[in-house]
Amino acid sequence: MKQSIIEIVDQVKQKQSLIHNITNQVVMNFTANGLYALGALPIMAHERREVAEITTQSDALVLNIGTLTEELLETMIVAGRAANRKGIPIVFDPVGVGATKFRTEAARKLLSELEINLIRGNTAEISHLAGLKADMRGVDATEQLDGEIVIRQSIEKLAIPIVMTGKTDFIADQATIIKLTNGSALLTKITGAGCLLSSVVAAFLAANQSNILAPTAAVAYFTIAAEKAAEQATLSGQFHIAFLDALSGVTATDLEERLQIEKVSVNGSEF
Amino acid sequence: MKQSIIEIVDQVKQKQSLIHNITNQVVMNFTANGLYALGALPIMAHERREVAEITTQSDALVLNIGTLTEELLETMIVAGRAANRKGIPIVFDPVGVGATKFRTEAARKLLSELEINLIRGNTAEISHLAGLKADMRGVDATEQLDGEIVIRQSIEKLAIPIVMTGKTDFIADQATIIKLTNGSALLTKITGAGCLLSSVVAAFLAANQSNILAPTAAVAYFTIAAEKAAEQATLSGQFHIAFLDALSGVTATDLEERLQIEKVSVNGSEF
Amino acid sequence: MKQSIIEIVDQVKQKQSLIHNITNQVVMNFTANGLYALGALPIMAHERREVAEITTQSDALVLNIGTLTEELLETMIVAGRAANRKGIPIVFDPVGVGATKFRTEAARKLLSELEINLIRGNTAEISHLAGLKADMRGVDATEQLDGEIVIRQSIEKLAIPIVMTGKTDFIADQATIIKLTNGSALLTKITGAGCLLSSVVAAFLAANQSNILAPTAAVAYFTIAAEKAAEQATLSGQFHIAFLDALSGVTATDLEERLQIEKVSVNGSEF
Repeated sequence: MKQSIIEIVDQVKQKQSLIHNITNQVVMNFTANGLYALGALPIMAHERREVAEITTQSDALVLNIGTLTEELLETMIVAGRAANRKGIPIVFDPVGVGATKFRTEAARKLLSELEINLIRGNTAEISHLAGLKADMRGVDATEQLDGEIVIRQSIEKLAIPIVMTGKTDFIADQATIIKLTNGSALLTKITGAGCLLSSVVAAFLAANQSNILAPTAAVAYFTIAAEKAAEQATLSGQFHIAFLDALSGVTATDLEERLQIEKVSVNGSEF
Repeated sequence: MKQSIIEIVDQVKQKQSLIHNITNQVVMNFTANGLYALGALPIMAHERREVAEITTQSDALVLNIGTLTEELLETMIVAGRAANRKGIPIVFDPVGVGATKFRTEAARKLLSELEINLIRGNTAEISHLAGLKADMRGVDATEQLDGEIVIRQSIEKLAIPIVMTGKTDFIADQATIIKLTNGSALLTKITGAGCLLSSVVAAFLAANQSNILAPTAAVAYFTIAAEKAAEQATLSGQFHIAFLDALSGVTATDLEERLQIEKVSVNGSEF
Repeated sequence: MKQSIIEIVDQVKQKQSLIHNITNQVVMNFTANGLYALGALPIMAHERREVAEITTQSDALVLNIGTLTEELLETMIVAGRAANRKGIPIVFDPVGVGATKFRTEAARKLLSELEINLIRGNTAEISHLAGLKADMRGVDATEQLDGEIVIRQSIEKLAIPIVMTGKTDFIADQATIIKLTNGSALLTKITGAGCLLSSVVAAFLAANQSNILAPTAAVAYFTIAAEKAAEQATLSGQFHIAFLDALSGVTATDLEERLQIEKVSVNGSEF
């Protein structure tokens, strides 16, 4: 599997995909800089009259409901339909779903009206989206839920590939669950790390269509960049900068040496 | 007083408050990262249909009119009423009040329709809000006004606790005026320092309700972080990063050794 | 010419102009910090009811269509008319023009309804605006077009001073074309470098009205700051910080020693 991941990273670097992000106002700048560091090209646009055209020219679309408004929700539907018509992958980041009725309904609407290729969220968000019981406190809730149980039940309910991030990261589709334990706690001390990961996953899906391998490679690349950055910086300000730098240069050797990966189940059977 | 400040800082670190920021688009990212560095949790949301729910789950609300629109003003009223119903503290940051008729009216509306717990602004903004004579040039106007006179007259007029920042910082309620002279001129060379301070004050009020002690502790913590950062960096780019780092680690010893504090008056009488 | 550039830089530093930016949400923070680093004062405001007042108090206006909405376009017209009435210079940054019908129409509307003092864009944007044939891929398209031909034809068609940036930067009005080759490829690895340059050009025009000299000085200052930063940092995260630092301190000596400038034509005749 390591070899496949390394190859996908090469594909991402060569493709230099254009990623259309309809995302929240807090993280726009960081998302754009992170995509540039990866070697992808960011575009942000949210005027309803132009989003279909922008999406159509892009290699992937990211929908992030962090500072969603009713108007922006309509725009996302328009962009999402354009993506669906052209087979452009959509990554959905359900920031704070469950925190309010509005976000919960918005998330449901996006899931019912669009064909989403992958959902990226934290444990609280994924379990809420899947209708599992969960408490939320703000959008950055860390939960004591057992990740393996949550991902197993969520993939069954949602039937869409999922990247569920936390101390342990899970990548799942209906056949396979992968567990990754790379990363750094400093990722939780800067705003927008999860949002950026969603856009990074989109760049990987733009370069490689595999449900499991592409998002796994994305999470591996992203969390190993965080590990490398955390070796340079112990506080969030310096880490922010070191992380952007690391995102541009995770090597095959880094992946070989650092990757902490485990298959949890294949075709539903554990092993 | 130093001992009380140190205790309040401990309370803030333990509480990890969730701060709902309805703030301007320029500073959202910096505000979020600054609150994380402090150990608090930021949330930004401004869809009218969800703000009451978000505020109700939060420990404090910040209203900042930096890139205000008419729609956002209505949203602030909705969020502010939810805060008032639940006794959640509101910090109001009247960015650029006096610069336009719209902002001046907006500020008045917020003050008349909501019970604001504290106002944080620069000398020009506070004096304008209080109806004292002042010229404004942009939102970052530095004024040659005598701070002590302004704060004394403003607290009388506004009758709401005030943090007024500048070369010297004042914290006042109707009984007490405190003067702090920590800080760094580099704070005026990065965007959003004042806005972040408003959110930091909110995090302190979320952890401790005292009108004077909590905001004084917030300003002390913030300006001493700036001092420490300015010892690491002389230009604004590096300072920006060093300041975020310093915000996570101002210690009791730092406070003990560095705090430049003075009571200007207690119960109206100078001493 | 070097001496004139050095004098204009001095004028900019002394004037500390207030620059009103109606710009995209991705770059607001970086633009504000970059203007502060330069010694100018940024203001961002986009409520239609207040923009005329804000613009009227400012020394220059920047209109950037990066995350334009229909509403924001109307606001730009209001602000632009206020600028025109008072003779306040307007810099127009046609981000992504040609990428969508909406942006192309918006750009045309701004050019027809307002008196724009200068247009700052990349080769793809300028050639599209001038009606020359050009493909666009996203808003950061790098083009293999011959810059000299493009700038020559564009200035003829548009008849407005132009700063056209790329590997080589061109500054042109109907009489003169200047070519600058300072800079760093790292400028293309961070988001908002072009947008910030537009605001920096505005600050230079606010201090000095010359069509050619002021924007040439702005581009020289900006790209030499990038060169200096690239000597400190090889990756985009560190470069971002080093560039902000460098923007505050490009000296007369830097300009003397580093400036790579060439006049391409004067009064239409090459030399």
